[in-house]
Amino acid sequence: MRQVVPLKRYSPVIVALVLLLVVAAGSAQQAPTPVPRDTLFVPLPDGPQVFKTAEQRLRVVPLKGLSRPWALAFLPDGNMLITERPGRLRIVRNGVLDPLPISGMPQVLNLRLKGLHDIALHPRFAENKLVYFTYWKPKPGEKDVATAVLGRGRFDGGTALTDVRDLFVADAWTDGAAAARMVFGRDGKIYMVIGIPIRTRVGTAESAQNPDNHAGKVLRLNDDGSTPPDNPFAGRAGYRPELYALGIRNAIGLIIHPETGEIWETENGPQGGDEINVIKGGLNYGWPVISFGRAYSGDVTGDNSGPTSAQPSAPGMEQPFLFWAPSIAVSGMVFYTGDQFPAWKGNILVGGLRGTQLQRVVLNARGLPIRRESMLTELKQRIREVRQGPDGLLYLLTDEEAGALLRIEPVNSSE
Amino acid sequence: MRQVVPLKRYSPVIVALVLLLVVAAGSAQQAPTPVPRDTLFVPLPDGPQVFKTAEQRLRVVPLKGLSRPWALAFLPDGNMLITERPGRLRIVRNGVLDPLPISGMPQVLNLRLKGLHDIALHPRFAENKLVYFTYWKPKPGEKDVATAVLGRGRFDGGTALTDVRDLFVADAWTDGAAAARMVFGRDGKIYMVIGIPIRTRVGTAESAQNPDNHAGKVLRLNDDGSTPPDNPFAGRAGYRPELYALGIRNAIGLIIHPETGEIWETENGPQGGDEINVIKGGLNYGWPVISFGRAYSGDVTGDNSGPTSAQPSAPGMEQPFLFWAPSIAVSGMVFYTGDQFPAWKGNILVGGLRGTQLQRVVLNARGLPIRRESMLTELKQRIREVRQGPDGLLYLLTDEEAGALLRIEPVNSSE
Repeated sequence: MRQVVPLKRYSPVIVALVLLLVVAAGSAQQAPTPVPRDTLFVPLPDGPQVFKTAEQRLRVVPLKGLSRPWALAFLPDGNMLITERPGRLRIVRNGVLDPLPISGMPQVLNLRLKGLHDIALHPRFAENKLVYFTYWKPKPGEKDVATAVLGRGRFDGGTALTDVRDLFVADAWTDGAAAARMVFGRDGKIYMVIGIPIRTRVGTAESAQNPDNHAGKVLRLNDDGSTPPDNPFAGRAGYRPELYALGIRNAIGLIIHPETGEIWETENGPQGGDEINVIKGGLNYGWPVISFGRAYSGDVTGDNSGPTSAQPSAPGMEQPFLFWAPSIAVSGMVFYTGDQFPAWKGNILVGGLRGTQLQRVVLNARGLPIRRESMLTELKQRIREVRQGPDGLLYLLTDEEAGALLRIEPVNSSE
Repeated sequence: MRQVVPLKRYSPVIVALVLLLVVAAGSAQQAPTPVPRDTLFVPLPDGPQVFKTAEQRLRVVPLKGLSRPWALAFLPDGNMLITERPGRLRIVRNGVLDPLPISGMPQVLNLRLKGLHDIALHPRFAENKLVYFTYWKPKPGEKDVATAVLGRGRFDGGTALTDVRDLFVADAWTDGAAAARMVFGRDGKIYMVIGIPIRTRVGTAESAQNPDNHAGKVLRLNDDGSTPPDNPFAGRAGYRPELYALGIRNAIGLIIHPETGEIWETENGPQGGDEINVIKGGLNYGWPVISFGRAYSGDVTGDNSGPTSAQPSAPGMEQPFLFWAPSIAVSGMVFYTGDQFPAWKGNILVGGLRGTQLQRVVLNARGLPIRRESMLTELKQRIREVRQGPDGLLYLLTDEEAGALLRIEPVNSSE
């Protein structure tokens, strides 16, 4: 496609990106993969900005200095651990980003959206100081193949993660673009979701329906990485015992519903077919057999450019709670439960990567979606993660080389 | 929903709206219906603005002074006829909006989105000066019921439409929100589409499947309003002879494909299920039996708040070319064929009302959709109509009380 905007307008940005590329290549031994985008990259201003939305004015306060931040976890002291996809673990102490990454992280394959992904504290972190994370482990002897791993280390608040080990190495090898997330359930078990890419040499979308691997699945693990004996497919021939649910595309959000304790997942479709699913043990969520999406080739029926929605539903396969067409590339999500945005209480707030927005889904008293609002589109930033802080404010991460943590505050009428 | 934005910030807008309400009520005997919106009304600046998009910088040049403009037609001399929903026909002469409406228009029911709608020139306008329009004719003795009418008059370039008459009065009476559009086909016939609302007292969504009325149908008429004998359902018992296609929801765009001559239609779904359809004679487009939308109540299966997508497909019912979920309320559309935006050639450009945007749908060499881009979201204006001018520029109408014609120009790299 033709680029008619004059390059000279973006030269400072290009210089900054080139510098970042050099730095990232030097530190992680791989150059970051360019992410295809449909909107121009617009640099984020250094200072706060105020935006109007349907029911609330918002102040966006950026904390810059992150590169491809992916996930964040709030520490009990209010500090934050933030992963960067190239493999670094960062910390924000008293609102200031420590320029020094936390040491001790394993080597990751930072390629085609793979890299260092999720981070979460053990439910008893205050006692055991255990930090969990997901990452893509390179395959020895291959330059672009990796699998998803659940890792763990101990963090005492200093500058190093210690006692770092792989708790679970999945059988989900791929050279494609895939994500891996994890969350602790109310039952104390770890739920880990591993996405499955399309158009790959190693690992195909069809793996999501094959119960003899971990790609395109939700897994259920003990907090030491072992397999609980009461998993839904335990003992079934041909099924990996870790499986909890099948038929997942590229899952980018995974949370626990604050009231019901259910596992809610967001996943990206191709052209259309982004979904929010309520994950129940033993069920099949249909990818790539069913989807509301369309192949990247434009075809509705399958062709050799990747799986597609020949049909939106099929017997024995679950329908999403909600879907998007076209895709906004839904990412992290929360159910808002705080007091800072009273009009948003009980709403879903979900990020959009390609759709460069924070989307609000209004639910009625029966928990059914009745309205959606696209917010912060003015920023033109790929929103990777959405979290509610202990202060009731929202915290977003932007999926950009010049990435940022965004604190979202209400602007009250008196201001 | 709570409105936390301070009202005092919007008092000038509120004053202007109140004034407009008073003026409109006085001139058309009905107060305009407030349109529910999910974004705040943001006044359009008086001067041009420049926006970046993925492949093209755009200059938006507003021409203000219109109220709820609905459709426009280019006259051979480059002037423009513009309908306003309250019932006025306006003219732009040499780029200037004549403050005096064109006289001679019939009385319309301007209520719940009904009113004066489409406008088109006869293919031989240069000879016969015939102008066609669609409007909602009030039912005598009822305060809120109307039906769709195809009207015609003669326009010699002056200040009056003469010889105005109803060519075809549909049997599509309703008190709900509905649209009516028309276009001349390559065969010289008039294709007229009449939408069907939901949650109404008179006229229900189920009418769209009943072949014995004109609501929720595409009709095919001669240029004098009579019925062509070769219509697809001609002579079939229980079918109105004007019917061309069935199962239409609220159609807001209707155009002829510039290469194939096919009839392309846009229609609004409820929560999700906005569609672009390629209309073929004799076919059923499924509303309200099938849809990708969801009832306003949030339910997926039907309830008493209106029809919904119990299923996205069914035998004997056509699938859309493209659909949206959530709805942006797709409106007017064009296939871009001009030289002013070379990167957009062959793309679909479609308006969004609720979605306050101009959306670009990129098609591949086989005519299949491969990408969508939301543009002009910064304006926060409900886009009602999209037309390509004889100059290759784009012309949009904003569906606002303080509405405008927007001329969209490319901004070249040297500027």
